[in-house]
Amino acid sequence: MTSVLFDRIGLLYTGDPAREEIADAALVISEGHVVWVGEAGAAPEADERVDVDGRCVLPGFVDSHAHLVFAGDRTAEFAARMSGEPYTAGGIHTTVAATRAASDETLAARTEALVAEMLAQGTTTVEIKSGYGLTVQDERRALAIAGRFTGETTYLGAHVVPRGASADDYVRLVTGPMLDACAPYARWVDVFCERGAFDADQAREILAAGVEAGLAPRVHANQLGHGPGVRIACEFAAASADHCTHLTDDDVDALASSGTVATLLPGAEFSTRSPYPEARRLLDAGVTVAIATDCNPGSSYTSSMPFCVALAVREMRMTPLEAVRAATRGGARALRRTDVGVLKRGTRADLVMLDAPSYVHLAYRPGVPLVSGVWQEGRRVV
Amino acid sequence: MTSVLFDRIGLLYTGDPAREEIADAALVISEGHVVWVGEAGAAPEADERVDVDGRCVLPGFVDSHAHLVFAGDRTAEFAARMSGEPYTAGGIHTTVAATRAASDETLAARTEALVAEMLAQGTTTVEIKSGYGLTVQDERRALAIAGRFTGETTYLGAHVVPRGASADDYVRLVTGPMLDACAPYARWVDVFCERGAFDADQAREILAAGVEAGLAPRVHANQLGHGPGVRIACEFAAASADHCTHLTDDDVDALASSGTVATLLPGAEFSTRSPYPEARRLLDAGVTVAIATDCNPGSSYTSSMPFCVALAVREMRMTPLEAVRAATRGGARALRRTDVGVLKRGTRADLVMLDAPSYVHLAYRPGVPLVSGVWQEGRRVV
Ligand SMILES: [Zn+2]
Ligand SMILES: [Zn+2]
Repeated sequence: MTSVLFDRIGLLYTGDPAREEIADAALVISEGHVVWVGEAGAAPEADERVDVDGRCVLPGFVDSHAHLVFAGDRTAEFAARMSGEPYTAGGIHTTVAATRAASDETLAARTEALVAEMLAQGTTTVEIKSGYGLTVQDERRALAIAGRFTGETTYLGAHVVPRGASADDYVRLVTGPMLDACAPYARWVDVFCERGAFDADQAREILAAGVEAGLAPRVHANQLGHGPGVRIACEFAAASADHCTHLTDDDVDALASSGTVATLLPGAEFSTRSPYPEARRLLDAGVTVAIATDCNPGSSYTSSMPFCVALAVREMRMTPLEAVRAATRGGARALRRTDVGVLKRGTRADLVMLDAPSYVHLAYRPGVPLVSGVWQEGRRVV
Repeated sequence: MTSVLFDRIGLLYTGDPAREEIADAALVISEGHVVWVGEAGAAPEADERVDVDGRCVLPGFVDSHAHLVFAGDRTAEFAARMSGEPYTAGGIHTTVAATRAASDETLAARTEALVAEMLAQGTTTVEIKSGYGLTVQDERRALAIAGRFTGETTYLGAHVVPRGASADDYVRLVTGPMLDACAPYARWVDVFCERGAFDADQAREILAAGVEAGLAPRVHANQLGHGPGVRIACEFAAASADHCTHLTDDDVDALASSGTVATLLPGAEFSTRSPYPEARRLLDAGVTVAIATDCNPGSSYTSSMPFCVALAVREMRMTPLEAVRAATRGGARALRRTDVGVLKRGTRADLVMLDAPSYVHLAYRPGVPLVSGVWQEGRRVV
């Protein structure tokens, strides 16, 4: 049992509400877990020592919303959108066609590359959704590939109704044979509840079937306009309602009085040139907020949690502390995890070291690759 | 004489108006310069070969506006601003005090670290200004340090009137003994022409004295409000008017009918939560546009040209092509350089390789560190 002391941490963001920040801190890990957190001078002995030299250390980011199993890209669609064309869910079909046509090896290699890209930017826990297959076989394949890289796999057969299919038939497939094939490979069930995708009744049917099959619910809700998604998420006690860009007072009340996290995805608003979610309204109402990348080739092709933190501060008026909390503990809450996103005795030794004295620099120095060290379950990986 | 063939370039952005983009390209360098550009199949033989494997190659970024010689940081001011306090030029004094107090070694080490950080993000040419000394000795020191890292050194004694000094006395110093001490270390003279800094008469006097001493003019113009800065820049045939955030029709006309480049600094608007310059209005009027980081600890602490390209597309509605052009050839024009920012026979072998098939990905994948290789004068440095 080798223990490692991270010494001379300039600022430690623990994510632990009991003591959220510690200046001049130290931290000891052993066997992949945190065993001690406190002031630098008071640290116990350890077998090895990492001199953090005044830098900031925080929990590895928890990216609770990502679509990483796909082929092709949508460069032309992006460029057209930047020239003024609006974002619609229609572009998803382009990625579905490319994904179906790709080999298992291609899909796995691309997913692996994105996971590695995320890790280099400090993301040590990532959720990965299916949703670009839309057939029994292609959805199962996507989840099997996702499962090689994370335990947080999400069945999103209900991403969009495939071209040429009737909505009713497709919902029967998603809640029937496709669910049967996918459930063994997934932890979560998700539905894109939006005009042009799935309506309230369909969303309820899909979530209920997923829960029945042993999956835990989460919802793509209220991205492109007002709608029933957020309230359905709360009704199902979903771990998270994701996007939350268009909210009524009732939506905010429902979130505040539920255990459902509001997961905000500012990379999507950046890349679709849309208005950002009202993070302050949610925070001021007492809602737990997470931020995640929504990494996908259509509406948000960033893999960078630091970039999302910078957007959260600049565009959604979260304080740097609120933003980093949302990117770590918030993401963990959105995945119902208590072993990650927080650094305290017993949690996983998933650590990020910044080449900066404070996490504030994630917003203060936007776009700069500040992540200079990453440890995952105690092993240095970057 | 060793030559190197960059083969199988998926997309080459040359920056050469004669042939600005080449798909399936190759490029040969020798003795630090480009010797051949064209289609992959037609490339001449070379001593060595780099397989670019379908990635995008472009000229190293030219960051024509940066303030890198300083000590301290302004984290608290940034956090306060994000909570709603407006940006003013007043914070400069904080950095002036820290910079004066720092040793030569500290200042040089910090400048070196920022230049290295820029290089890792693809910036192979950077301009560096003084302006945090504001005494004869401290301004000269800043320029001597800047000169270790770039030939593009800019005397910005006229950054702000130091606390406790009279403006008239300070302008006499800046145009007299300070200029005499600094001119041997500088290529450019710059003035912050803005309400609260230097007015039109003072700006003219400072630029004229600089020109008299052999320096070439450039101007911080129209950042915080309308003013005479842009027209004075054009009047002096300055290489660049920088910021250009608040423009009248007369300003745009003056730029369009002059050789003065409009250098836009969207990192500053991001980090001060201000409205962005109207890039489209300038481009549509035929003005040459550059983008640069304005890297400094107060109003824009990013060192990332890729981030500025993403902002240029998202926030200023430049096309990805216009943005990458502004970050390469545009920056070179803003420094009156023809040997960098363009890849054609005879230019410097300053190259960036992206881990992406197109430069569009700089905007399409915001925040992601896509720069996977950098060559400076033919030597691989990243
Ligand atoms: Zn999504
Ligand atoms: Zn400046």
